[in-house]
Amino acid sequence: MRATTIHAPFDMRVEDVPDPVIKESTDVVVRVLRACICGSDLWAYRGESARQPGQRIGHEFLGLVEEAGTDVRGFAKGDLVVAPFVWSDGTCEYCAEGLQTSCPSGGFWGSVGSDGGQGEAVRVPYADGTLVKLPAAAAADDHLLTALLALSDVMGTGHHAALGAGVTAGSTVAVVGDGAVGLCGVLAAKRLGAERIIALGRHTARTDIARTFGATDVVAERGEAAEAAVRELTGGQGAHAVIEAVGTEQSMRTAVSITRDGGAIGYVGVPHGSGTGLDLSVMFDRNIALRGGVAPVRAYIPELLPDVLAGTIDPSPVFDLTVDLAGVPGGYKAMDERTALKVLVKP
Amino acid sequence: MRATTIHAPFDMRVEDVPDPVIKESTDVVVRVLRACICGSDLWAYRGESARQPGQRIGHEFLGLVEEAGTDVRGFAKGDLVVAPFVWSDGTCEYCAEGLQTSCPSGGFWGSVGSDGGQGEAVRVPYADGTLVKLPAAAAADDHLLTALLALSDVMGTGHHAALGAGVTAGSTVAVVGDGAVGLCGVLAAKRLGAERIIALGRHTARTDIARTFGATDVVAERGEAAEAAVRELTGGQGAHAVIEAVGTEQSMRTAVSITRDGGAIGYVGVPHGSGTGLDLSVMFDRNIALRGGVAPVRAYIPELLPDVLAGTIDPSPVFDLTVDLAGVPGGYKAMDERTALKVLVKP
Repeated sequence: MRATTIHAPFDMRVEDVPDPVIKESTDVVVRVLRACICGSDLWAYRGESARQPGQRIGHEFLGLVEEAGTDVRGFAKGDLVVAPFVWSDGTCEYCAEGLQTSCPSGGFWGSVGSDGGQGEAVRVPYADGTLVKLPAAAAADDHLLTALLALSDVMGTGHHAALGAGVTAGSTVAVVGDGAVGLCGVLAAKRLGAERIIALGRHTARTDIARTFGATDVVAERGEAAEAAVRELTGGQGAHAVIEAVGTEQSMRTAVSITRDGGAIGYVGVPHGSGTGLDLSVMFDRNIALRGGVAPVRAYIPELLPDVLAGTIDPSPVFDLTVDLAGVPGGYKAMDERTALKVLVKP
Repeated sequence: MRATTIHAPFDMRVEDVPDPVIKESTDVVVRVLRACICGSDLWAYRGESARQPGQRIGHEFLGLVEEAGTDVRGFAKGDLVVAPFVWSDGTCEYCAEGLQTSCPSGGFWGSVGSDGGQGEAVRVPYADGTLVKLPAAAAADDHLLTALLALSDVMGTGHHAALGAGVTAGSTVAVVGDGAVGLCGVLAAKRLGAERIIALGRHTARTDIARTFGATDVVAERGEAAEAAVRELTGGQGAHAVIEAVGTEQSMRTAVSITRDGGAIGYVGVPHGSGTGLDLSVMFDRNIALRGGVAPVRAYIPELLPDVLAGTIDPSPVFDLTVDLAGVPGGYKAMDERTALKVLVKP
């Protein structure tokens, strides 16, 4: 089959690789219908996260079950399924609690020895614990399929951030980061009943999506000017709930600054940079909580799926460029250069 | 009157100062019956927090109302009252939410221009918002009075840490810090129904109190050995809820290390040190939350008071040395040299 590989920074290739086969009786093989490129893939692309030459990549996909191991109970050939961005056994204590990202048997797509989502097919370990079945009819609905793909990562991650930030009905929310996760954070906050959602971002194309998703205010300033603008919008106090969807020191500093005393930051931007950007003294004096981390998306798919199927939430606008498999290297370039927000891959 | 003043690091004096008088109609003057020295006072004592020469000190006290301003509604001469470690107006949005530490009209005892608790009397601003009335009969009960004094800071702060750490019935809790706040954290965790409480500490006198307060296990090792010991006690996972009651980089590092994936650190140790000690990457991967800060003790006194009056919780063992006002400088020395855990002051 054909799959995307990474050989060095900025050296993405689409190559012939061995067809995936069932190795364990709990595996399935999924033929990929939709995949995409994640902002976090760019860390590998830019060489900021190390990869071995030829390693697979891509952790978001949905598709059709092509073959199922003999111990797979929940899936059969032909089922339409979506995969969260980590696999998990579904039987351990952490999986039972809904923290599948801490499953001791779990792992990330594209890690050494595993398939990545940006290819024609994927061997899925622990299929019963990992995959979620989608209605078969969705396979024929191009728009819905794209919306459902967001459940593999960005929609669930935005939801995790909103929960971490403590968004409830009536909350005032601020969202740091206008990437796909930040935008899904807006959508998640709206879904949870937030009354006011302030999106920080200066790219009109993105903040327009934020408004579509429920943002009531947009702050286009940066740094201290952005912080001042949020405070002005919130009577000087800041937002109860702040979603941090970038992961840099500067974004964390902004998040702390715009959180109301007693509020919380839900952080889902993968932390990068030499320090944390957290001023613990400020957080201490103002009782600001920090909650979040790698999102246990598997736990959230069952909750979010009905709303996506019903069209109550539609995250599909975060995909603004579509490529085929051969177009994946160009897709990385577009996202790196910020000419694309999020790239959809149709193998 | 006589009151404690700080003139330079290690230079504590007990001096004649002006008698407190009603300045605002919402003030009362309290004659101090019990005060104490806090671990956080040692930061000033050691010169690690700046003070102006002659500044008052002490933020924990209870006593009798000597005089009340004309607009004070809730208190009259002769009332027995306890003060939380900050004053607050009781009418603002933050006070209404129970976050009195963020009251814009609030302040700390001993700040420039205000009285401190380690003296014969204190002018209390916003008395109706600040003070809590105690049963008159308690004034004659020496033991109870000492237990009630803990409500001014350490008991409420321990409770705040336990709430921040997410302690609920059945929790496994670890407590970093064997000072008075850490010990009160043990007591608070027990009160909230924790099933297992692991106290980290190597001073037998202190860990004995921890056991009295409800600790089921004591870890006397330090650093990585302590972390390994907690993991061994918790099936390799760490504790759901970790109370951090020190505030150094090392203690925060220990707290992160011994928290179970998906758990929370309730931090109440005033942050000190050049960095935070937080490894945000580890916290991200393991979904560890950080909640806490300066405790809104005023909000907790009404909840904790009935249990102290009933004897259900008795924090008084944290006081292991009693001095009169002239003995306060010696009390600082004893706490600094760790020959005393917490010093009770009977002016």
